[in-house]
Amino acid sequence: MSRFLNEKYKTLEPYTPGEQPQGVKLIKLNTNESPFPPSPKVIEAIKEAEIEKLNLYPDPEAKVLTKAASAYYNVPESGIIAGNGSDELLAFAFMAFGGDKVVFPDISYGFYRVYADVFGAKAEKYPLDDNFMITVEDYFDAGCLVVLANPNAQTGTALTRADIEKVLKTNKNSLVLVDEAYVNFGAESSLQLIPEYDNLLVIQTLSKSRNLAGARVGLAFADGEIIKDLNKIKYSFNSYNLSRLSILAGAAAINDRQYYENCIKEIKSTRKEFVENMEKLGFTVVPSLANFVLARHGRITGGEFYKALKDRNILVRHFGDERIKDFVRITIGKKGEMDALCAAAKEILA
Amino acid sequence: MSRFLNEKYKTLEPYTPGEQPQGVKLIKLNTNESPFPPSPKVIEAIKEAEIEKLNLYPDPEAKVLTKAASAYYNVPESGIIAGNGSDELLAFAFMAFGGDKVVFPDISYGFYRVYADVFGAKAEKYPLDDNFMITVEDYFDAGCLVVLANPNAQTGTALTRADIEKVLKTNKNSLVLVDEAYVNFGAESSLQLIPEYDNLLVIQTLSKSRNLAGARVGLAFADGEIIKDLNKIKYSFNSYNLSRLSILAGAAAINDRQYYENCIKEIKSTRKEFVENMEKLGFTVVPSLANFVLARHGRITGGEFYKALKDRNILVRHFGDERIKDFVRITIGKKGEMDALCAAAKEILA
Repeated sequence: MSRFLNEKYKTLEPYTPGEQPQGVKLIKLNTNESPFPPSPKVIEAIKEAEIEKLNLYPDPEAKVLTKAASAYYNVPESGIIAGNGSDELLAFAFMAFGGDKVVFPDISYGFYRVYADVFGAKAEKYPLDDNFMITVEDYFDAGCLVVLANPNAQTGTALTRADIEKVLKTNKNSLVLVDEAYVNFGAESSLQLIPEYDNLLVIQTLSKSRNLAGARVGLAFADGEIIKDLNKIKYSFNSYNLSRLSILAGAAAINDRQYYENCIKEIKSTRKEFVENMEKLGFTVVPSLANFVLARHGRITGGEFYKALKDRNILVRHFGDERIKDFVRITIGKKGEMDALCAAAKEILA
Repeated sequence: MSRFLNEKYKTLEPYTPGEQPQGVKLIKLNTNESPFPPSPKVIEAIKEAEIEKLNLYPDPEAKVLTKAASAYYNVPESGIIAGNGSDELLAFAFMAFGGDKVVFPDISYGFYRVYADVFGAKAEKYPLDDNFMITVEDYFDAGCLVVLANPNAQTGTALTRADIEKVLKTNKNSLVLVDEAYVNFGAESSLQLIPEYDNLLVIQTLSKSRNLAGARVGLAFADGEIIKDLNKIKYSFNSYNLSRLSILAGAAAINDRQYYENCIKEIKSTRKEFVENMEKLGFTVVPSLANFVLARHGRITGGEFYKALKDRNILVRHFGDERIKDFVRITIGKKGEMDALCAAAKEILA
């Protein structure tokens, strides 16, 4: 730490991203990436003629991307903003709307706690129930920014749209941020509630279901006034927040509906088969509507299982949080990768 | 504005980026982009095999890029951090080190005022002298973060390294941020002062002299403790702040020394010729060591000249600030573009 750092950040504990080993051959099931390449349309979009234009600034409004999202999701363009990954949009949202206090579940995306800290809001956490489900009533009349990942991060469990609507109805004077990073793997999106609820902010990412983690593209959807506020923060932070190529990649990915629907179908079918196989091996698997599952086995701790898999070149994620420390979080990859993990698990448990 | 926006941002005035008309054919001399495409090595680096890997997260440390910068500039990797454009790094720096007060020149990069506002620091501005030069003594014993663009934004005038060193020496307990966005067009970089001054933070961009405005790549250089602080902010904001392709583009651009040196040589020679031609037409041109010049003519206001050029499909930038409102800022483009501007100016003045 230098002697120049602002006093208020001295004890700040930043987020720890999952390992991203470079140039190492392994089965990577630790950061919920898609195992499939981006759409062929993305590869087409990033053509030489576009790379040659990298001397010019991107469109700060990323219009081709927000237009594509508008057409796809039937949300007006004035109700959409693009971010450098959904993390940047989450940061802008905590900054703009965090105020003094923010509420979210005790087990959720680890960055929420960091954003609360860095932007000076108290983080109040409501525990998930014994089945790792969100108790929706906890968030009624919150009196502050409510942040719900749906499906929830780390657990994969989801709320129904009707439940989200209950939270919206009981929080007319508070913003409800629904982080739909994993929504396309089987949960109900709340996007269609936007016209009715001006206190709803939905954030999505193209990193997971659009196979674009490496391009850093996120989208936020809300009433136009909320998007104006987020733009105010964006233009006070980084006007040109998406590169030219990320804008093109994002738009092309959204426009190729069929490709991404096929990828999702494959992941859902792999998830089903993998969960069955893990259960046969005696694992407890939290029912997930995301592209990952949380799994534990009575005979091995989460940390040991993580390490034993890593020794076999299979990377999963282990979290130290008390409530899930017996589990590992496993991304749903290709069928062959999941079979390899099951085989390794069998060997480890033997 | 929504009713959820944090009170403290209600009066915030964001930065206004230069116009980025999409798909319109015009001579674009308004945002200090390079008129030349990126290095052929950049085009090579963004090959199909790399685009196909966009389903995977980037390296959050952007190692290939910081390694390239380390080798090129002879700064240890622990003293370098990459940003989503230098704007993101400036934002992180104001956030980390801004404290209660920040000083910078009255005419400089417009974003400094915004960063001060958004992160709650008082912006104290010291006027440039009558020749638009920074009075270096103004910044002695500042007692707060000092921000100097060198060459200065909007004017193109530069301080010597010896002057920067004076500011460093008289501010042992304050951080001095030198924004070297335009340094490669003829000014002296302060990078070599880093080993001696742990209160120096140098920020550069690949947008201007590396022809990569569209890729959003910035770099900050400083003592390792300062870089640790900036990483703390980064990992509390957006871990994966550069896309895979931007990291590759940035590294390839830095590694192609010859290409970018040739581009710079061309721009300097065009600048010299253009300034002479404008002076022949009766323009006053502020002596610039950047890839732009500030020019005015007694017979036309800055706003009128901007508009008359725009009517002729030539885009330059006009700022409303009292001290430079009679000027327009003109990016140095290709020789033919500058000749077209001179011809248009002649016509406008006739």
